[in-house]
Amino acid sequence: MNDSAIAPQGITAEFRFLTGVKIVDFTQFEAGPSCTEALAWLGADVVKIENPKMGDPGRRLRPGQPDNDPYYFHVFNANKRSMTVNLKSERGLNLVKDLLKKADVAIENFAPGAIERLGLGYDVVKALNPGIIYAQVKGFGEGSPYEKNLAFDMIAQAAGGTFSVTGEKDGPPTRPGISLGDTGTGMLMAITILGALYKRRETGEGHRLQVAMQDAIMHYMRINFATQGLTGKAAERGGSKVVGVNNAPMGLYPCAPGGPNDYAYVMTSRANPDHWDRLLKLIGREDLIGDARYLTPADRVAREPEVDAIIAEWTRTRTKHEVHRLVGEAGIPAGAVLDTMELQNDITFEQRGIMQVMKHPVHRDFKMPGWPVRVDGKPATLKPSPVLGEHTDGVLSDWLGLSSAEVSQLRSDGALS
Amino acid sequence: MNDSAIAPQGITAEFRFLTGVKIVDFTQFEAGPSCTEALAWLGADVVKIENPKMGDPGRRLRPGQPDNDPYYFHVFNANKRSMTVNLKSERGLNLVKDLLKKADVAIENFAPGAIERLGLGYDVVKALNPGIIYAQVKGFGEGSPYEKNLAFDMIAQAAGGTFSVTGEKDGPPTRPGISLGDTGTGMLMAITILGALYKRRETGEGHRLQVAMQDAIMHYMRINFATQGLTGKAAERGGSKVVGVNNAPMGLYPCAPGGPNDYAYVMTSRANPDHWDRLLKLIGREDLIGDARYLTPADRVAREPEVDAIIAEWTRTRTKHEVHRLVGEAGIPAGAVLDTMELQNDITFEQRGIMQVMKHPVHRDFKMPGWPVRVDGKPATLKPSPVLGEHTDGVLSDWLGLSSAEVSQLRSDGALS
Repeated sequence: MNDSAIAPQGITAEFRFLTGVKIVDFTQFEAGPSCTEALAWLGADVVKIENPKMGDPGRRLRPGQPDNDPYYFHVFNANKRSMTVNLKSERGLNLVKDLLKKADVAIENFAPGAIERLGLGYDVVKALNPGIIYAQVKGFGEGSPYEKNLAFDMIAQAAGGTFSVTGEKDGPPTRPGISLGDTGTGMLMAITILGALYKRRETGEGHRLQVAMQDAIMHYMRINFATQGLTGKAAERGGSKVVGVNNAPMGLYPCAPGGPNDYAYVMTSRANPDHWDRLLKLIGREDLIGDARYLTPADRVAREPEVDAIIAEWTRTRTKHEVHRLVGEAGIPAGAVLDTMELQNDITFEQRGIMQVMKHPVHRDFKMPGWPVRVDGKPATLKPSPVLGEHTDGVLSDWLGLSSAEVSQLRSDGALS
Repeated sequence: MNDSAIAPQGITAEFRFLTGVKIVDFTQFEAGPSCTEALAWLGADVVKIENPKMGDPGRRLRPGQPDNDPYYFHVFNANKRSMTVNLKSERGLNLVKDLLKKADVAIENFAPGAIERLGLGYDVVKALNPGIIYAQVKGFGEGSPYEKNLAFDMIAQAAGGTFSVTGEKDGPPTRPGISLGDTGTGMLMAITILGALYKRRETGEGHRLQVAMQDAIMHYMRINFATQGLTGKAAERGGSKVVGVNNAPMGLYPCAPGGPNDYAYVMTSRANPDHWDRLLKLIGREDLIGDARYLTPADRVAREPEVDAIIAEWTRTRTKHEVHRLVGEAGIPAGAVLDTMELQNDITFEQRGIMQVMKHPVHRDFKMPGWPVRVDGKPATLKPSPVLGEHTDGVLSDWLGLSSAEVSQLRSDGALS
């Protein structure tokens, strides 16, 4: 770490990789918005098409308390523009068709059949713009017995396998506490859209892209499928141990002062026998170096409760931060269990541009993780999520060249509200 | 579902989005290989540069049992080529430099400092090829107090927050049973590489891209940060409930015959009051429709144990598959908890091309999830992971135009082994 690397000034940059790429974004909640937000962070012009009355339902997760719940919307809609259109009016619908004619990408994650009922299914849009990349995110895949079913993150995670491998060995299946069914899916669609865009620069050709959340989850379950290949039985839960990796010590160790997240993960690598000796030295148990009871990974696995107790005796008198630092400095992989408040309060994330404060014209400041990949040393600059309809006029001017008089006319015709 | 949508013949296609894109791949294990595999599925020519003796350590996770453990390597290295080079020999190193001059992308995820010690750090490679996209994946970010530390998936997940939000409310932090720290990071790097490639078609400009696994994990924790924004305290664990969503019923319900994964997730949407009434009708409890005790989401949250018992009484006498089907057909979000064996044995995934059987020249057939996003109705065709050094001659011929005599000379000079 050197001071210049963490200077808080000028540490982010506006990415311009996708400058000029026009995206008509019909998405809502998280699976779709996380995808288009990634593209917005790379510089695309992402225009959310929103219902003038309510907008993306992700704006209002707590009915009756709109102003107190902007965060969900912020985290998935930074750097985008919002345009409100009345898709039930013919003029509104035609306006969106005009935008689609100019677009490089269109994307939606409505319930099955909904985009077709709006009159904007793939066949319609392809006829308007044969070069468009038309992307759809659903819960279950076309051809699945459940293809018409609704799905939310937890449904996709249950049916995609993550519950079955999460939780205590003898306990019930458990939900990973993260929305992998949504953002995990959105990332795979973003990759595919970008592949299609790359080719399109050469050929101009459009494509239909489709992903199902259940199918996408399995992409993140591949270690578990590999473990099943070895054992011949379904991958199991193992608490915080990694099932299928026969090694010790490896796991969570309790730290001072004993709060709910006062633990640190410590692991020794099978491939590096020095790790165990280094660890014994660090914790003041040189007496056990070379002890036949704990010599090989197999020996230590056979005596795992003893091994864990030896380490826990040392960790229990130190904070997780000390354990992370001391074990890490000794060249052994270690990590404190950090909670969201600790991550937010750790100023180094903000100094490095990994967390950024969203300055919003309506809502109060909110510190959130931005796009974590750095380009030439800098993460993407975070811009506020749009107010509902904030950019209607701007988009109609930029994309369609409409004058303010024409926009006013559309407004009084009910096309925009 | 119609028969043509699930026809097993010709349901996959070779994606050609990145045809002609040359990637020099120094990655190992999962975080890096998952990234380059996504690019390979999109059609890039991904050449793994491997140590002639051992190759990617992901090939040999069980020391002494190489032939019984190909699955880990398969799942992250499909559709790639392998070339073996001795980077410790001057000719070997120069050969890789020749490849880097031809490459569009180079990527590595070695321990901090290792690529520089090999003599292939960013400054060296940029001087050879100013237009290259040079990507690096590490455990902790540059500028982090832990930037020099080793990290594996579980370390990144602990330090990135996922443990703190996974597990029972009053239990210890728990590892999500999936390798999000690795593949989750790889996907964010793939997106950024593709953005850089898109721009490069226009400008020819190269960039250095860097991501840390701890930072990437926070991207998947954004719901938890949003919840913290609402409550003002660290996001908590909630078993299989979603903390911060005050709604009932929502959760896992036990199903027949009571095995470790015999559960189904059922949720009613707050936004759709019909869900609760539909569910009561389905489970034969029309008597409770309109009952003041359970009328609103808030009422049901206040009596959540009662509500859960009413539903569990019905689910307990049905299999999870019946519950998934019946609740889903009633228009209420539901999903069975499926394990890896059930997913593997469900033939519909194979019929849709979501799972594919890898036919390998050395190892036995292995069914695994491929790239789940469909392009014009078809997922990418799975090709086998490469045998160590399988494509050395082919790459030297394709990329550098070397004759077989020249390759033989390199081989006898010790550059390739």
